Amino acid sequence: MKLIPGGICAAKGFSAAGLKAGIKPTSPADKNDLGLIVSSVPCAAAGVFTTNRVKAAPVWLDKEQLADGTAQVIIANSSIANACAPDGEETCRKEMALVSDALDVKASDVLVSSTGVIGVRLNVEAIEAALPELVSKLNDSAEGSDAVARAIMTTDTVKKEISYAFEVGGKTAHIGGISKGSGMIHPQMGTMLCYLTTDACASAEMLDKALREVVGKTFNRISVDGDMSTNDTCIILANGLAENPCIANEGEDFEALKAAMYEVCLYLCRLMAQDGEGATHLMTCKVSGAANEADAEVLGKSVINSSLTKAAIFGADANWGRVLCAMGYSGVDFDPDKVSISFVSEAGNVLVCQNGRGVDFSEETAKSVLSEEEVIIDIVLGEGDAEATCWGCDLTYDYVKINGDYRT
Amino acid sequence: MKLIPGGICAAKGFSAAGLKAGIKPTSPADKNDLGLIVSSVPCAAAGVFTTNRVKAAPVWLDKEQLADGTAQVIIANSSIANACAPDGEETCRKEMALVSDALDVKASDVLVSSTGVIGVRLNVEAIEAALPELVSKLNDSAEGSDAVARAIMTTDTVKKEISYAFEVGGKTAHIGGISKGSGMIHPQMGTMLCYLTTDACASAEMLDKALREVVGKTFNRISVDGDMSTNDTCIILANGLAENPCIANEGEDFEALKAAMYEVCLYLCRLMAQDGEGATHLMTCKVSGAANEADAEVLGKSVINSSLTKAAIFGADANWGRVLCAMGYSGVDFDPDKVSISFVSEAGNVLVCQNGRGVDFSEETAKSVLSEEEVIIDIVLGEGDAEATCWGCDLTYDYVKINGDYRT
Repeated sequence: MKLIPGGICAAKGFSAAGLKAGIKPTSPADKNDLGLIVSSVPCAAAGVFTTNRVKAAPVWLDKEQLADGTAQVIIANSSIANACAPDGEETCRKEMALVSDALDVKASDVLVSSTGVIGVRLNVEAIEAALPELVSKLNDSAEGSDAVARAIMTTDTVKKEISYAFEVGGKTAHIGGISKGSGMIHPQMGTMLCYLTTDACASAEMLDKALREVVGKTFNRISVDGDMSTNDTCIILANGLAENPCIANEGEDFEALKAAMYEVCLYLCRLMAQDGEGATHLMTCKVSGAANEADAEVLGKSVINSSLTKAAIFGADANWGRVLCAMGYSGVDFDPDKVSISFVSEAGNVLVCQNGRGVDFSEETAKSVLSEEEVIIDIVLGEGDAEATCWGCDLTYDYVKINGDYRT
Repeated sequence: MKLIPGGICAAKGFSAAGLKAGIKPTSPADKNDLGLIVSSVPCAAAGVFTTNRVKAAPVWLDKEQLADGTAQVIIANSSIANACAPDGEETCRKEMALVSDALDVKASDVLVSSTGVIGVRLNVEAIEAALPELVSKLNDSAEGSDAVARAIMTTDTVKKEISYAFEVGGKTAHIGGISKGSGMIHPQMGTMLCYLTTDACASAEMLDKALREVVGKTFNRISVDGDMSTNDTCIILANGLAENPCIANEGEDFEALKAAMYEVCLYLCRLMAQDGEGATHLMTCKVSGAANEADAEVLGKSVINSSLTKAAIFGADANWGRVLCAMGYSGVDFDPDKVSISFVSEAGNVLVCQNGRGVDFSEETAKSVLSEEEVIIDIVLGEGDAEATCWGCDLTYDYVKINGDYRT
């Protein structure tokens, strides 16, 4: 597998564009708010979406659109979520029809995606007005990927984009992804959106299977603030232009595709956690020695979701009692007397708890370990051999600032 | 029922004292850190405790002590939680023996309670040294209650204490309570401790039943930050000196006692939420029209635990989408299209969502409603007739400040 430039345009046959359509009149003048991703041919496609009981219109409509396993275009906007909004379905269908006409693709192959404020009508008229220019800007180079990656950003501070070349079935295929926001199971309200493109050939069924497995071990293991959005979406389009023998079953080729998807999603999910609202630290929680992987995951998530632990990491305070406490209320059965906890970073490794009891450690070393940008909370249980890693970020003044006055 | 002064000393036969024992050498010079509550005669007693898998030594030892339904003394300290600490059981048993000797009560009737930092050995030598002075200060007036209420405070900014007189079985009885911290199911790490005293006569079994019901509708419905402590404790001592016919069954007298307990706990739990770390608003979430009370409670808790909703309330931002979103990921089955949401306070009432869709409202009115100290999020579902109220607080810069550097 080889890191390459190009983002979602790295795979053959994909082009993209982004611009400022003025979805919300008050949005910054230089900020793209509308993006388009187009494959030159119809794609096998799969998606995973929020499990929130309250779903934005684009989410349940995309689920319908993906029922036949094909799609060709994604149109995505920021600023307005189109959730709990007047005319939610109507505005989505209007978008689909507009894009279908403009690109001469089937309306049933157009996916729509939105992120932003809830409860406000999507200004589809602004999208209609901007569409001709957006289509004219479609570009199959890194520039196109960049423009749409920027269009979906909201409170993100860095663009999230990556691409790889990989071998599958004797051919070189490509896969790229862009994303925004900070989570899947527990994303910030700013919503997680992720679009993956590949020129590998695979059936919609195999894409769906690979996507669910990969999302389960990546995006579903990050959290910024425990709030699950109404709009979370992760979609993959596979247009088959790499000409590998089409993947229709599990096996070596399926594993190769899944491994490439995993690398893309791992990179994006870590970047999303690190870029969580107001974050100053990437907080990685590795749980090993668990009875099974599900237990390890629940424990890790409980730790990265603990407001007290997150605030302690912000303060570079080796307050391991909060880590053990968060494990204790996770619902997982384990013996606290067999737990060890270390803090690890590029600056070193400090053991703070052994057999469930505090051990003497140098506060100075701990401070220096916890002051690095990525801090690993390394938890070892005495229950078995399973492990899982989860990612989050610290809780800071800026998180409160951003979310105390986001809407107005 | 009549509000009276006296706190936990309002009931006949109870005395209390508090002082600074220097449990932690670095604690402020003028801050009590050790308290004692004593009944002149043995009491029927009941307690409810944290369900965290990681339990402090005082929690599991008090559970043992309460197995026989009797107790006479509570000794409580702040600064050190005696959780995951070296010699946890040994230091608790030493405390029990010391108090037993000093007061000539059975060691099995002494309850111990701690709050503070995890993983540090409880300095029982400081308690031993302070005990003679503490005993000499025992006082059956409001002064005694005040001293112990202050001894258990940690990051609390206000003392939490109340007492009532009530009629039961043709006699006037009294009930009082003190508490610290901010939660039970989801308390801050600072831990919730609550001690109730009454001179009503009731069996330990009836006390336990009443306490569980009342805690379920009060302390279990507040949350500050979703973190459940290792030390949470709520204990009631009933010494029978009011001479009412002893309550051994459900019925009118049981209901009278439970109603008095409810008033005390309701007052204390609201005050705890309001005094949540860094809080500037008491956030009350009332859910009605639910299919059943359990659903209403889960929905209300999901809202008061949402970091995004809490930050919006801090910013006086009528961001109702975050409320509906938090309901959506609560796990409760409901129809979002039948939900109405209003914000209510002393400044007025503003309907922001009807039938799951945003409605036009005055941002100016909303700002003024949300700027009051208590803000009620009034949610009406279209599922049934059940309701529940939960209490929380906003998420502020000060929460991050307090918790980013609590331990050191």
